[in-house]
Amino acid sequence: MSACEFESLEKSLESHLPEVELSEVKRILFGKDTQKLDLPACAVSAAAEHDFELKGYRFEAAQEQLRPPRRIRVGLIQNHVVLPTDAPILDQVNAMHSRIGEMVEVAAMCGVNIVCFQETWTMPFAFCTREKEPWTEFAESAEEGNTTRFCQELAKKYNMVVVSPILEREGLHSTLWNTAVVISNSGNVLGKSRKNHIPRIGDFNESTYYMEGDTGHTVFQTQFGNIAVNICYGRHHPLNWFMYSMNGAEIIFNPSATVGALSEPMWSIEARNAAIANHCFTCAINRVGTEHFKSEFTSGDGKKAHHDFGHFYGSSYVAAPDGSRTPGLSRTRDGLLVVELDLNLNRQISDKWSFKMTGRYSEYAEEFTKAVRHDFKPNIVKE
Amino acid sequence: MSACEFESLEKSLESHLPEVELSEVKRILFGKDTQKLDLPACAVSAAAEHDFELKGYRFEAAQEQLRPPRRIRVGLIQNHVVLPTDAPILDQVNAMHSRIGEMVEVAAMCGVNIVCFQETWTMPFAFCTREKEPWTEFAESAEEGNTTRFCQELAKKYNMVVVSPILEREGLHSTLWNTAVVISNSGNVLGKSRKNHIPRIGDFNESTYYMEGDTGHTVFQTQFGNIAVNICYGRHHPLNWFMYSMNGAEIIFNPSATVGALSEPMWSIEARNAAIANHCFTCAINRVGTEHFKSEFTSGDGKKAHHDFGHFYGSSYVAAPDGSRTPGLSRTRDGLLVVELDLNLNRQISDKWSFKMTGRYSEYAEEFTKAVRHDFKPNIVKE
Repeated sequence: MSACEFESLEKSLESHLPEVELSEVKRILFGKDTQKLDLPACAVSAAAEHDFELKGYRFEAAQEQLRPPRRIRVGLIQNHVVLPTDAPILDQVNAMHSRIGEMVEVAAMCGVNIVCFQETWTMPFAFCTREKEPWTEFAESAEEGNTTRFCQELAKKYNMVVVSPILEREGLHSTLWNTAVVISNSGNVLGKSRKNHIPRIGDFNESTYYMEGDTGHTVFQTQFGNIAVNICYGRHHPLNWFMYSMNGAEIIFNPSATVGALSEPMWSIEARNAAIANHCFTCAINRVGTEHFKSEFTSGDGKKAHHDFGHFYGSSYVAAPDGSRTPGLSRTRDGLLVVELDLNLNRQISDKWSFKMTGRYSEYAEEFTKAVRHDFKPNIVKE
Repeated sequence: MSACEFESLEKSLESHLPEVELSEVKRILFGKDTQKLDLPACAVSAAAEHDFELKGYRFEAAQEQLRPPRRIRVGLIQNHVVLPTDAPILDQVNAMHSRIGEMVEVAAMCGVNIVCFQETWTMPFAFCTREKEPWTEFAESAEEGNTTRFCQELAKKYNMVVVSPILEREGLHSTLWNTAVVISNSGNVLGKSRKNHIPRIGDFNESTYYMEGDTGHTVFQTQFGNIAVNICYGRHHPLNWFMYSMNGAEIIFNPSATVGALSEPMWSIEARNAAIANHCFTCAINRVGTEHFKSEFTSGDGKKAHHDFGHFYGSSYVAAPDGSRTPGLSRTRDGLLVVELDLNLNRQISDKWSFKMTGRYSEYAEEFTKAVRHDFKPNIVKE
């Protein structure tokens, strides 16, 4: 069985483990069991008709006396590119709009309040090629581009916050950025969050196209909670998650594009660790499928030139502050993951585990400030 | 099956999954397969005779041109308390010395260079009781206590670095600390590392006994590599791992005492995330078994008073910077995990993934310094 055929970890465990062991294995691997969410029949049949996976789960919080529950629903969308990568740019973008449009319609049927798409969702992940043309033509204005307008329509139509990660072209200097546009459920652009950390590994040649983001760790206050967007490679940097949390994020989205052999064993670790360490929810989204490019390219690994980046393994999931997580979406199919969160859980877990209270942040800030100086002397004891 | 009966996740997967799926499941869960280490027959039979689990694995690194391999072996020891918790203190300590002595002898047969015991290894984890007496009598001088002398003998006899986490009594003011004593293979006390973060959760009433450590993030340069000790609850704090790494740690030990229902789903996440994020090896060690106390105590959860803390689930493991990890030791048995590491892997993975190079540490230090001020205004965008 090849890595692109293996459908999902969870399915494999459920097919083969005896029930009594399965429940222990799931507890150790995934924490407290997440309840399935009842989804409306119309959504289930629309998903089947449009050939994508639809799953729903619910994280519950204890009932408090002074605060009502703060139950909201997030939607995570993972998908293949629709057209071949050598189709005309505009056709590719329109086909992606159309695909996402039908998936968001189903999200709306499921009562989703905040939806997030995968990284640079309007285009193939073409940065492996190091070709500037035609890929930079996918870049759009965050504020006024066609894709933002399309998302504004969705947001208004469905009363839904839309997180739309695109390749951004900033007008004045034609600068490119990897940017998530956050659109309020009113349809207004609330702001944008640029990718803070840019990889230099394997075929992730993104540093050829854009630089580290300059939007810091902005948090967006929406009707459905305070959200932040930590794009892709930023999930490997615990400080990045931490700083979004320090600015008040209750849910941190991690729209990504990442491939099998390289990152898959880390995928289930990093976003989940961030949810635990920061008493918040994290939503990890990865694209699906293998994208083929017309020109061959090499990978800096001594191997022959080739035409694809490898298999994007999907497996999108949501992690909760109590250490539990939902099962992942498929490794091979388009999918929509609908998850109901009670945001009261964040403070409840903070009161229980107290990682922030016990974090000694002032001491760390001081120590850290010394440690980043070029003449820092590490504290190493020798015999 | 109760949580104290379930022996291990890995064993369950290996017993039931078809081979072709097992390899995919293991790749996704544990990363690159860790090779088994051939251990000498005398060690295998001594472990069987003394009734503890013995497992060995190896993490390899690529051969470099300019640096020879830096292969060393670490030993992680997890164990039950030997005597009932109401036996005379000195008998309990002596019984633990004797048990650890026989396990370290086997570690020596396996060529272990650095051994680490579990948190406060000479005593039951009695802080759940909130009784000061008799438990504070287990406290010893880090520099001159019987336990340190015992470990110095082991270190010299076996040419082994010994990390010995104890309850420390500091002489002048009779202050208690939760401290790891690091003893060089020469037999000299190299220094000590005090627990940086003290829990306030469930029955972890340690803040009743000792305060947050004052030894910062000391790294110990030994003949076998630069090591650091992040004790127990410190593993929930990514900044703690990070700062040990900033000071040059190549291996970070995490001697712990933690129980099932509370932390088990986090256990496989946190130390592993730290190994990934900091390009280093991490060694997570947890005690085993259920410890019964004579006086009943309550748990602040509205439930009836009881006599035990719950099941310490063992499951000690080593995580590597490439996202892979060893299988865990048993959840129920005493055990010695011998792992050969090539420390060259740290820099190789750093060169590959570049989390430090791309970490933007100066920006974070600045942002963080602002964020810890009491009058910090979080960066929240509203409509």
